[in-house]
Amino acid sequence: MKIDVQLTTARKQKPASDQLVFGKTFTDHMFIMDYTAGTGWHDARIVPYQPITLDPASTVFHYGQTVFEGLKAYMTKDEQILLFRPEKNMQRMNRSNDRLCMPHIDEEFALEGLKQLITIERDWIPTAEGTSLYIRPFIIATEPYLGVSPSKRYQFIIILSPVGAYYKEGINPVKIAVENQYVRAAVGGTGNAKTAGNYAGSLKAQEVAEAAGYSQVLWLDGKEKQYIEEVGSMNIFFKINGEVVTPALNGSILEGVTRSSIIELLQHWNIPVTERRISIEELYQAYKEGLLEEAFGTGTAAVISPVGELFWNGEKLIINDGKTGELSTKLYDTLTGIQTGKVEDPFGWTVRVLENRVSI
Amino acid sequence: MKIDVQLTTARKQKPASDQLVFGKTFTDHMFIMDYTAGTGWHDARIVPYQPITLDPASTVFHYGQTVFEGLKAYMTKDEQILLFRPEKNMQRMNRSNDRLCMPHIDEEFALEGLKQLITIERDWIPTAEGTSLYIRPFIIATEPYLGVSPSKRYQFIIILSPVGAYYKEGINPVKIAVENQYVRAAVGGTGNAKTAGNYAGSLKAQEVAEAAGYSQVLWLDGKEKQYIEEVGSMNIFFKINGEVVTPALNGSILEGVTRSSIIELLQHWNIPVTERRISIEELYQAYKEGLLEEAFGTGTAAVISPVGELFWNGEKLIINDGKTGELSTKLYDTLTGIQTGKVEDPFGWTVRVLENRVSI
Ligand SMILES: Cc1ncc(COP(=O)(O)O)c(C=O)c1O
Ligand SMILES: Cc1ncc(COP(=O)(O)O)c(C=O)c1O
Repeated sequence: MKIDVQLTTARKQKPASDQLVFGKTFTDHMFIMDYTAGTGWHDARIVPYQPITLDPASTVFHYGQTVFEGLKAYMTKDEQILLFRPEKNMQRMNRSNDRLCMPHIDEEFALEGLKQLITIERDWIPTAEGTSLYIRPFIIATEPYLGVSPSKRYQFIIILSPVGAYYKEGINPVKIAVENQYVRAAVGGTGNAKTAGNYAGSLKAQEVAEAAGYSQVLWLDGKEKQYIEEVGSMNIFFKINGEVVTPALNGSILEGVTRSSIIELLQHWNIPVTERRISIEELYQAYKEGLLEEAFGTGTAAVISPVGELFWNGEKLIINDGKTGELSTKLYDTLTGIQTGKVEDPFGWTVRVLENRVSI
Repeated sequence: MKIDVQLTTARKQKPASDQLVFGKTFTDHMFIMDYTAGTGWHDARIVPYQPITLDPASTVFHYGQTVFEGLKAYMTKDEQILLFRPEKNMQRMNRSNDRLCMPHIDEEFALEGLKQLITIERDWIPTAEGTSLYIRPFIIATEPYLGVSPSKRYQFIIILSPVGAYYKEGINPVKIAVENQYVRAAVGGTGNAKTAGNYAGSLKAQEVAEAAGYSQVLWLDGKEKQYIEEVGSMNIFFKINGEVVTPALNGSILEGVTRSSIIELLQHWNIPVTERRISIEELYQAYKEGLLEEAFGTGTAAVISPVGELFWNGEKLIINDGKTGELSTKLYDTLTGIQTGKVEDPFGWTVRVLENRVSI
């Protein structure tokens, strides 16, 4: 499929790199393609960033048939554009599509569209330490029909947003509250898909936690409310007595790209790492015995987010004196180093965007 | 708040009443109002039915912050327009809003807006036996921001769709499959709210059931996959040994307006009715003992939908010889009779739309 390019005639002012707020500023262009049942994906195009116009009866507004992804592009010191394992995001998008009865995308073509878009938006990639260009591919169901059934029409869209440094004054531990009342996902539900409804349902718990001074919640499983699942938009890892443990993918946890990378990195370093079921009780016992050495979340936004305090059952568990642990620091430095081309990439994770695709 | 009215200059052709398909045809106008944090709801207006224009970063596309309702308007023989317990829908919408961290609507004002819209669209209400005007109020989050937090902007919209008779050749039992793999909702999740994500997650099970020749799935609870919850977009009732049983509202079941009305109607008739936990095992045992007399779903679309066959664990449970039961018929006739003004309404459930509000 050919990608039609229509450039804007009115480029926006780019914000200063210390003024960047996550997800509020968008670049000059976006990528779109349409899907029609029977025809497949068609009309791939890069157009000026603009509103979407949809019938009020469109499936996305009523039955939430939608999936999304999140990844980043980085500008290296020698002005190369790097993506971090973008094929993983495209694969996950297709797994989400399966769960939501939505059509597959051609992963390679979507990546090609993304690369062309980024090439055009090259000047939007911020270069200051810790900054990057956040990439949001998403698919929405657009058939104007109120029957509860899979839509026959979709739009796949990629928008880009320059983002500032997540840690402005050095990597900073967060306080997290264990959620006892609300449930994010149950096995058999949509927890392992990246779809809108999971996030809509999570807002309430987040609101309660924030009011109590916590930045996020730690979700427990939907069945027994005992086993640790993940954090708002991060997977979770614990270092217990020298061993790193993260909840196994059980069907209700999102398989984070950062999570997979951390596991591979730890294995590469010969640090013991296990994916298994871990209950909040077990974690509490380890804490009581002084064996809980570090805790950290992993995700595209913060890469590594050390947890300094965990609130559970009326008790504050202070982890590593509320400071960033050694392993967390090493993982953060290595992973962000690889992502930004500062550290050698022995895994072949980074993908260079070659800029000979479009002439502008 | 004043409701601004802008009438269309190009009225659409109305489909013949035997050509009506649920949720595919929409009337000439829609009601909209906007919400802005700090200001509240504003700019209520009735405008020609038209596409909505939204920034691609709008919350609804990414995090699914949305709620909706569904009810009907009926034209009586003497040309009165009746709504059925519409205040219940507005109340439920506000309960959904709470769960989704969305702003409350003024229930009375929203109902007033609905009445004005229906008055304008009066000629769209089909009059043939079994037909009605389906009403879809919904709220979508429209702030262009990719942070996972409640939107600061919303649109409340009402669209109308004329619908044909649900049962064209007399009330007809359906075949339903008990769902063992997928989960609709868990306690602590969003199951008792009418929000998009619940329906997106249900499509997969529905697809599998349809492929096997079943029209819907019967959901079991998300925790033990043992207790009966509800059907696709209906609540469920069983008549067991002379007693009517329906699953109790446990936090993951939607509180149907039809469900409440059926319970009240049965109580009015002195027919024993109980809301309680009921497992699929218990139901199966009752069936084996010949005590399962009737089963029926209840919802706005079909009002009463008798279940003729239930598929569970490789076995087909044939209920009442696959025919519509006596109680199902009586409930259907009475409820549709009240809704359409043919049967006396001892409960004060119907609300007349008085047509002196707008001059057109
Ligand atoms: C629910 C959830 N879990 C985990 C993650 C982490 O995934 P990744 O490392 O791919 O960003 C995310 C963010 O994308 C998420 O939304
Ligand atoms: C999940 C679900 N359960 C039950 C119902 C029945 O509710 P009501 O009787 O208010 O139409 C509906 C339909 O609205 C529904 O979507």
